Amino acid sequence: MAEQATQVEEDDEGLPRNLVAQVIEAVDARDGAALAALLSPLHAADIADLLEQIDQRDRNGLLALWTGGMDGEILSELGDDLREEVIDRLGPRELAEAVRDLESDDVVDLVEDLDRDQQDQVLDALAAGDRLVVEKALAYPDESAGRLMQMEVVRAPSHWTVGEAIDYLRASDDLPEQFYHVILVDPRMKPVGYVTLGRLLGTPRSIHLTELMEDSFRTFRVDQDEADVAYAFNQYHLISAPVVDEDERLVGVITIDDAMIVLDEEHEEDILRLAGVDEESSLTDRVMATTRRRFPWLAVNLVTAILASMVISLFEDVIAALVALAVLMPIVASMGGNAGTQSLTVAVRSIATRDLTGANVWRVIRREVLVGLINGMAFAVVMGLVGYLWFGQPLLGLVIALAMVINLVVAGLAGTAIPVVLERLGVDPALASGAFVTTVTDVVGFFAFLGLAAVILL
Amino acid sequence: MAEQATQVEEDDEGLPRNLVAQVIEAVDARDGAALAALLSPLHAADIADLLEQIDQRDRNGLLALWTGGMDGEILSELGDDLREEVIDRLGPRELAEAVRDLESDDVVDLVEDLDRDQQDQVLDALAAGDRLVVEKALAYPDESAGRLMQMEVVRAPSHWTVGEAIDYLRASDDLPEQFYHVILVDPRMKPVGYVTLGRLLGTPRSIHLTELMEDSFRTFRVDQDEADVAYAFNQYHLISAPVVDEDERLVGVITIDDAMIVLDEEHEEDILRLAGVDEESSLTDRVMATTRRRFPWLAVNLVTAILASMVISLFEDVIAALVALAVLMPIVASMGGNAGTQSLTVAVRSIATRDLTGANVWRVIRREVLVGLINGMAFAVVMGLVGYLWFGQPLLGLVIALAMVINLVVAGLAGTAIPVVLERLGVDPALASGAFVTTVTDVVGFFAFLGLAAVILL
Repeated sequence: MAEQATQVEEDDEGLPRNLVAQVIEAVDARDGAALAALLSPLHAADIADLLEQIDQRDRNGLLALWTGGMDGEILSELGDDLREEVIDRLGPRELAEAVRDLESDDVVDLVEDLDRDQQDQVLDALAAGDRLVVEKALAYPDESAGRLMQMEVVRAPSHWTVGEAIDYLRASDDLPEQFYHVILVDPRMKPVGYVTLGRLLGTPRSIHLTELMEDSFRTFRVDQDEADVAYAFNQYHLISAPVVDEDERLVGVITIDDAMIVLDEEHEEDILRLAGVDEESSLTDRVMATTRRRFPWLAVNLVTAILASMVISLFEDVIAALVALAVLMPIVASMGGNAGTQSLTVAVRSIATRDLTGANVWRVIRREVLVGLINGMAFAVVMGLVGYLWFGQPLLGLVIALAMVINLVVAGLAGTAIPVVLERLGVDPALASGAFVTTVTDVVGFFAFLGLAAVILL
Repeated sequence: MAEQATQVEEDDEGLPRNLVAQVIEAVDARDGAALAALLSPLHAADIADLLEQIDQRDRNGLLALWTGGMDGEILSELGDDLREEVIDRLGPRELAEAVRDLESDDVVDLVEDLDRDQQDQVLDALAAGDRLVVEKALAYPDESAGRLMQMEVVRAPSHWTVGEAIDYLRASDDLPEQFYHVILVDPRMKPVGYVTLGRLLGTPRSIHLTELMEDSFRTFRVDQDEADVAYAFNQYHLISAPVVDEDERLVGVITIDDAMIVLDEEHEEDILRLAGVDEESSLTDRVMATTRRRFPWLAVNLVTAILASMVISLFEDVIAALVALAVLMPIVASMGGNAGTQSLTVAVRSIATRDLTGANVWRVIRREVLVGLINGMAFAVVMGLVGYLWFGQPLLGLVIALAMVINLVVAGLAGTAIPVVLERLGVDPALASGAFVTTVTDVVGFFAFLGLAAVILL
């Protein structure tokens, strides 16, 4: 154990556990050499994570001590807020050095969310040709295939042979850093297929490229939503795909690593939205920014909670006559809310993966209602007994049992139907379903329980 | 609009909207030619989705009519339940034909979750050499790098030049279907780096391979968790990575497309677990299977709801004296539950992405508590006014205001601390946090509100 304090663990992926403490120690001691020794073996993504995990005072100390260490890749990996903070601290020359080695699509990713001033600072730091490419990409809509693609493309006429393609690649001196396919184009620059470099290398020179084309070929339009692109890469196991303009001419290529980042972001967004958290939240956000981002969903929830309370207030007399109802009523609402959340989460995910469609929506709703009915009956038996044994009134047990069945059936119905309807209306079901579904299960839960109590018990 | 009914839409990614209806029509009419014409242009992943979206009767009709169409890729894309159903319907010869063209890692993925009988059926259908490879992979632990990797690796001694590597690749006649890198190994078969095919093709013959090695090189151990692999691919933007055995010898390679599938599955699992749904749920599950999978979480929720009710029952006298308390009390609990869910979702995601660590956990808890305090005060003002105006009692407004602040502070604390503690204890925070956090916010919400009412109002 004593050794672990001074030795960096390499056992797991990600940032070694005690490295952060060592870095802070070096910063506190103003020991630039020790700091550089700790940071230089790290991947840019890990350095970015480290900057996000330490507090602002340590971060300022680190950046002051570690001059010249900041590069474009680390900037790319930082969250938006922190990226702005760090860019503010870099001088123009340091910034220019940092971004000069980035590929054009990485520069686009780096600057697209910066404010205008900082964007200009970065663009000014680029060579004229690179700047032109970046500005062209920024002209495409936010979150489009055009923003995601790289413009450096390796292409070949579709009538070439393997030998011609290899000779061309061997002779050319400005191939992109990373490429895995040669895109075949017709004379009007329309992509017609692609060939992997592996297959090119494994095939005799005389074979025509068209014979080696991959089955999985798909193109994207430059204005297509990046979420569609990520879906298609995941669904069809694409490695790279050409991007075309409105005339179907080749303008760029998207590779799987870019699609993976988008897929990851989309998932993150869905998870947070389902919990009522704004998708841009991150751990480095300040208190006030976080408070503002959490507020709207809580405000929506307050309105729905007041609605539920108004239902309860309809039955004040009933509760006054039998206070046990006030004790038991949250159970019915809570079970309905949980069952509804289960149904809606499955529905929201199935809509996102395009598995829940017009073709099967009624079958899925029927299933969810049946599941609600069966689980409702199971918990009705349990709660009927609990209600009876706790308060000694068999009819009270009957009331809570009936209310439980009703609310779990409604939960299955609302949990599936509400996301489907929202999606048809063009509203993101991940964002809005939760509020609607719990409103329904609260209102129905209290109304069914207290209403049945009024009829059966009084 | 009339045209849309007969024409397949190509506008969006995924399964065209009205294709399902056309397929069912062809199945009902027993028109095999029409069915084949509809299905043959589709990607295997889309055919699998289609099979999952139609009901069992149509599916049986389709499979009976579409003889010989089923291939291994479609089987690979099916969910576990449906895959077993379809394999049951295939004769041994049809099964053998279907799986023969799959790569070994796809066969592993196909059979690893089948029951023993079906697994043997598929293995029997393989050629002896392929079978050996698949059985070797199945010997590695479930969800390990060994299961995920492909064993066909393109490697070269690290002392070679570009020319030697190209000549070797051009001369070899058993290159894998898909490969993007050449892995460099030392004389003891330990991987020391890799070179992309693109760079190989763009570099003069005399240059040594070691000069072209990529920075992002990382290896995985064969028994490492596939979740670690997916994390590293995403974090470090890897395209492929060698897998080594305990002696650090190269045994396989994992490519980004495999890692992307794992990342997708991990996300899906987290989303569903956060909602209390078992991760193996899918839309094709039967009613009883779904009911059983939803039951445990609802049972846990019932226990926590009863706990909350027991807190309420401590204050029956207070409620009997002032029924307005029964009307307002769910609001405090509901707001706490929502705020707690926001905090816990951010915490669970940050733990998953390794952004929430020992280094910043206290800072994050402090932030969440402050956010709870500020939002709590905002909603305290709103609810204080609502309570006062609704029931005409200023002190009732004060009680609900104070309870709101207390519960939102507790929500921020519990929502962050509980997932962190669970993770330290080795429990998946996505699975268990929700129940604990809402129990805390329910109990504290009811206790604070009713307890303050007892002190201040009576």
